[in-house]
Amino acid sequence: MIKFGMVGGGGGSWIGAVHRKAARFDNKADLIAGCFSRSIDKNLNIATDLNLSPDRIYKTFTEMAVQEGGRDDGVDFVSIVTPNDSHFSIAKAFLENGIHVMCDKPVTTTSAQAKELKKIAEKRGLLFCVSYAYSGYPLITQAKELITNDEIGKIRFINAEFPEAWMASPIEREGDKQAHWRNDPAQSGSSNCCGDLGSHVEHLVSYITGLRIVSLCASLDVFMDGRILDDNTSVMLKYEGGAKGLYWASYIAVGHDNGLQVRIYGTRGALSWIQKNPNYLNVSYLDKPIQLFSRGKDEIYSQKLYQSRIPAGHPEGFHEAFANIYLRFIEALEKKKAGLLLTGEDLTFPGIDDGLRGVQFIEKCVQSSRNGSIWVEM
Amino acid sequence: MIKFGMVGGGGGSWIGAVHRKAARFDNKADLIAGCFSRSIDKNLNIATDLNLSPDRIYKTFTEMAVQEGGRDDGVDFVSIVTPNDSHFSIAKAFLENGIHVMCDKPVTTTSAQAKELKKIAEKRGLLFCVSYAYSGYPLITQAKELITNDEIGKIRFINAEFPEAWMASPIEREGDKQAHWRNDPAQSGSSNCCGDLGSHVEHLVSYITGLRIVSLCASLDVFMDGRILDDNTSVMLKYEGGAKGLYWASYIAVGHDNGLQVRIYGTRGALSWIQKNPNYLNVSYLDKPIQLFSRGKDEIYSQKLYQSRIPAGHPEGFHEAFANIYLRFIEALEKKKAGLLLTGEDLTFPGIDDGLRGVQFIEKCVQSSRNGSIWVEM
Amino acid sequence: MIKFGMVGGGGGSWIGAVHRKAARFDNKADLIAGCFSRSIDKNLNIATDLNLSPDRIYKTFTEMAVQEGGRDDGVDFVSIVTPNDSHFSIAKAFLENGIHVMCDKPVTTTSAQAKELKKIAEKRGLLFCVSYAYSGYPLITQAKELITNDEIGKIRFINAEFPEAWMASPIEREGDKQAHWRNDPAQSGSSNCCGDLGSHVEHLVSYITGLRIVSLCASLDVFMDGRILDDNTSVMLKYEGGAKGLYWASYIAVGHDNGLQVRIYGTRGALSWIQKNPNYLNVSYLDKPIQLFSRGKDEIYSQKLYQSRIPAGHPEGFHEAFANIYLRFIEALEKKKAGLLLTGEDLTFPGIDDGLRGVQFIEKCVQSSRNGSIWVEM
Amino acid sequence: MIKFGMVGGGGGSWIGAVHRKAARFDNKADLIAGCFSRSIDKNLNIATDLNLSPDRIYKTFTEMAVQEGGRDDGVDFVSIVTPNDSHFSIAKAFLENGIHVMCDKPVTTTSAQAKELKKIAEKRGLLFCVSYAYSGYPLITQAKELITNDEIGKIRFINAEFPEAWMASPIEREGDKQAHWRNDPAQSGSSNCCGDLGSHVEHLVSYITGLRIVSLCASLDVFMDGRILDDNTSVMLKYEGGAKGLYWASYIAVGHDNGLQVRIYGTRGALSWIQKNPNYLNVSYLDKPIQLFSRGKDEIYSQKLYQSRIPAGHPEGFHEAFANIYLRFIEALEKKKAGLLLTGEDLTFPGIDDGLRGVQFIEKCVQSSRNGSIWVEM
Repeated sequence: MIKFGMVGGGGGSWIGAVHRKAARFDNKADLIAGCFSRSIDKNLNIATDLNLSPDRIYKTFTEMAVQEGGRDDGVDFVSIVTPNDSHFSIAKAFLENGIHVMCDKPVTTTSAQAKELKKIAEKRGLLFCVSYAYSGYPLITQAKELITNDEIGKIRFINAEFPEAWMASPIEREGDKQAHWRNDPAQSGSSNCCGDLGSHVEHLVSYITGLRIVSLCASLDVFMDGRILDDNTSVMLKYEGGAKGLYWASYIAVGHDNGLQVRIYGTRGALSWIQKNPNYLNVSYLDKPIQLFSRGKDEIYSQKLYQSRIPAGHPEGFHEAFANIYLRFIEALEKKKAGLLLTGEDLTFPGIDDGLRGVQFIEKCVQSSRNGSIWVEM
Repeated sequence: MIKFGMVGGGGGSWIGAVHRKAARFDNKADLIAGCFSRSIDKNLNIATDLNLSPDRIYKTFTEMAVQEGGRDDGVDFVSIVTPNDSHFSIAKAFLENGIHVMCDKPVTTTSAQAKELKKIAEKRGLLFCVSYAYSGYPLITQAKELITNDEIGKIRFINAEFPEAWMASPIEREGDKQAHWRNDPAQSGSSNCCGDLGSHVEHLVSYITGLRIVSLCASLDVFMDGRILDDNTSVMLKYEGGAKGLYWASYIAVGHDNGLQVRIYGTRGALSWIQKNPNYLNVSYLDKPIQLFSRGKDEIYSQKLYQSRIPAGHPEGFHEAFANIYLRFIEALEKKKAGLLLTGEDLTFPGIDDGLRGVQFIEKCVQSSRNGSIWVEM
Repeated sequence: MIKFGMVGGGGGSWIGAVHRKAARFDNKADLIAGCFSRSIDKNLNIATDLNLSPDRIYKTFTEMAVQEGGRDDGVDFVSIVTPNDSHFSIAKAFLENGIHVMCDKPVTTTSAQAKELKKIAEKRGLLFCVSYAYSGYPLITQAKELITNDEIGKIRFINAEFPEAWMASPIEREGDKQAHWRNDPAQSGSSNCCGDLGSHVEHLVSYITGLRIVSLCASLDVFMDGRILDDNTSVMLKYEGGAKGLYWASYIAVGHDNGLQVRIYGTRGALSWIQKNPNYLNVSYLDKPIQLFSRGKDEIYSQKLYQSRIPAGHPEGFHEAFANIYLRFIEALEKKKAGLLLTGEDLTFPGIDDGLRGVQFIEKCVQSSRNGSIWVEM
Repeated sequence: MIKFGMVGGGGGSWIGAVHRKAARFDNKADLIAGCFSRSIDKNLNIATDLNLSPDRIYKTFTEMAVQEGGRDDGVDFVSIVTPNDSHFSIAKAFLENGIHVMCDKPVTTTSAQAKELKKIAEKRGLLFCVSYAYSGYPLITQAKELITNDEIGKIRFINAEFPEAWMASPIEREGDKQAHWRNDPAQSGSSNCCGDLGSHVEHLVSYITGLRIVSLCASLDVFMDGRILDDNTSVMLKYEGGAKGLYWASYIAVGHDNGLQVRIYGTRGALSWIQKNPNYLNVSYLDKPIQLFSRGKDEIYSQKLYQSRIPAGHPEGFHEAFANIYLRFIEALEKKKAGLLLTGEDLTFPGIDDGLRGVQFIEKCVQSSRNGSIWVEM
């Protein structure tokens, strides 16, 4: 059993509970320590709810990193579930105490910080996973495999979007804590919508297609009076090899709950997937009827790869996708703890390189937008 | 922490793993004992996979019931995940040793057996849950609440169906163990398709509407040569109060993975839900546009009731629905163990009465069909 | 140019305008005469709207039949667009004056009448088309061809339905003329819902599959107080060759505009089509992804057969389906007028045999239902 | 009866037949003259098919314009259905002979030409309609009305697209005549995809929202080797009043037949419509379930406005949308011929101003793209 701790993820954070469920989903990891809140009282309440021993609850992440790093039975890894601005110092503290890291995205607020984390992790030989959870959906991996196996030919165009209605009203001024920190540059960094939703789009496309962005032209818009950071983002992109693309991420898109969608057009075929109906993948070919791949049924490559657990027609969702990211990370950790050498096949979870690239994407979008939405090179 | 054991659910049984994940989902129950297989070797292998102590692995369910019933730290409840024919004797053994029961459906193969279990459970004051998992979907409870609150008026007609392609080929003769026992009357009972899929339909409609069946006319069809039991079922129904209905369940419906769907038509409105897209509920009213209720967003009654865990647009699926049934059962158990009196509000999980009614439904369908698809009274 | 007249279809009858547009759609027929209403004033008003010559407007259908039948430049055919009870006498009058007939369904209110019309038409060598318009959709013919060419194997089960919300309120008492005559046994015949919607279902399944009904068990329900005729119909069916089926037609299905849907399950594949999205056909095969055939693109047989006019993605709808029935009828008429012999390939429009079978279906459903929903032989 | 002629629209042109059906749909206009092809033989063949008198068939459009303009019984208007490059000279010839014009889009290949046509038409008091057919869908007018009546608040963002797979293969080199001229700058003008599909998007958004574009940044891409003109187009836009938008049009989007889609996000609500399912409109509000407006049922403004002909659930499609544009144009002509003064309410068809704006949009997109996809002012 892998042991882990958590920093953040207390109180109002629904994503904290998702992390905990995802880590435990396959019965391979136990939560044994935590610093869930800056308030020691809240901390202890959460510990009680979670059946944790009070002596593994810490007042600060620094104390936690040092003490857990020093114990023989200390945590193997830490899950960092805090606002963006604190990711860097927390991750750094745990890495420096020899503890592997699972961190929410964006991994840091500057690429310099991400590079430093990468350097420490590599030097220490520690695993670093960034929780780009949407890439954990089985049909996303299927889409990736279809492209790798040249089913749709050379990619020409990508249209990806992530519209949400979440901030169509000024909820950050109406008591929504999550919305509050996300709209605060001090906690969120230089972008809100692009940094959160846009960054998911960037990673998902990158994971599926393997294409690297060459240049981009971005418009980070503020539609709600009183906001400093963007609540809507459009990006035009050029990729290596000549493909082009369009990304749209929005917090003001009334009618969308969490409308992440990816469409990829190749010379011979096309793929289309939408997160709200994640168990199906549209696969189109030239001069053939559109095909609707169903998770658990129309899987043409390795079952293991897809991390699909139940038969077709029994919907899996966000928890399972999140659990899949954890599973890839935990299985690599198990192998590492067993003294085995990790190869590329073990490192299929989103790593610090993905995290770094995500931060760079955000930085370049901000740079483009601030200069009048001009084209900038990556 | 509630402690539980499992009988069956080893090896090829995917539903065994679903039970375990569902029981653990909310971190309120631990699996500590089991008799997963008739082979002690398989049993021990599974125990190892699950990190169970070998001394809590049993050769027979009888041994397990007696010993766990006799220990101070014995299991609080047992999950029975075996072919239909063994439910009765296993459940009986555990009840008689003072252990609460979670049992797969149909709860027994005859209504006499179900009545006997009900009697024992009531006499002993033990909880008995039947895992009609589809009723655990949050929007199913929302549909129930909409009807209870008279949103759609008096119910006139119900059209419910559960088509699957699973046995469109003779897979029971091609090595599929699940399909094999389901087609064997000795293990399955007097019906295959009606007893499995039809029984889910019966419970789901009953749960949502509260309507009791008055009479029915059923056709249990065998389309595959060599089969003894039905692989397709049609039922016309009359309910108390004048409503009528149609059920269709099928194992030979090519193109359907697991197409459970319920549509309920009232005097002022209608509800429609399909399991493959479970986070949405269609709500129609006379002279208004159709409305698409989204789980986590358009919830008009108590949040707690719905057992919805993550925000709208982040799909939940079958694991969460199953976990919801477990959660209702476990929370009642916690209250009971704490010496509190249980009221109707605590007994929202599908109980032995639901199980009994389900078996009676199967019996009446078989009786109707065997007599030329005539109308029979319930 | 084929010349035609119309009886009925005036004033409030939207279907009258559809007939006229459908007949003119391909520029092969001209409306030149009519008896649109029993009121000569309304009649003349309509004639003005339609640019018809007043001397071709008649006070009674008998006068019209006699005079048009006697003119050298008389109409080639008449379209009968009146309540059910008058179809027989009108059709008879025109046939007896040597005029071909296009008649709304059900073709008559008793099968004896339908047989008499058949006899007259055959004796006179006149064409008789019954406007089962839904069979004119291109993808319906594609479905028929897929089955004829054994794409889905032997048919096992059929599930077809036609739910509407149209009479979920007592609109026949609130001024709706169409609803009024449909609920009046004197004008509608022995059934309302089954005779209208059910009859469309019967024909559509018959057209696509070619299967003949052996026996059926029907429930014709009256849900609205004060109604005499059924507003909801369920039918269980057995077909020649062992296939079985379920039909559901309803006028009280809140939330459905015109929800005609047909699903056909064979041993190797399945077809599914829904009228509200008529340009797509779901085609499923064992162990393959579901395929979505698009009209105008995924047509695997003769283009002519499909009567599809514009490229894929440009939706066609009800007018075109109706026009296709007219086109089949008009092209046969053209050939007949040219003195050519008609073969089976020319007689693809729904004929008097289809009309007769439709009336027999209604009669048997009524007979079954009146006797306690027992099984009756066709 | 309005009389009209046609230039082009012969032989392989499917849109020619659509124009003819659309013009005749409501029985208010007759085709009586034509110059369908440069070959007089083809011309006469078409005339025979269409039952036209040979003396109204012309060798050249100039001859046709002069002669029809000189006859007392000459055509009221001409429909121009030819490749883009000839629109200007044809339209000019007819206008100068006093004949009203219906012309395919883009109305000309340069904005200077469009301005000249506008000048002539205004001077002569002639009506000029540009056949932006998609704006004829009833729910598009409903969307426009919803916005005009402030149902969704102030518009923030627009996402519109028109993906097609039509030219995903080099069909212009494989015998497709339509694709051939569209890829030929001499006939198509400076753009292919943007000029055709992009121009439809521009008009549809403009019609629905009334918003004017302030500046744009476009990428006109060529993905197929050997092509000169764009086969894919992305545009970022800023509108008057602060709204922003994204357009995507593509000829290489495998899997799309004709995927025109418009989504409009306001401060209080949002609208979403897709052409392949044109009888439904998604209407979203903050904190309410999504509503699905059905054509013919959920119409909250004037029925006349919507030009919807048949009840909800009976699909209307492309022919009806096209017929609606013709109907608006023809009814204005009727009024004009009757000597009545036309007001804004009569001029609801897409006019020369819309045509001019469309050409300017194309020119600006080309200008932006040729200069490295920079922002340009409209």
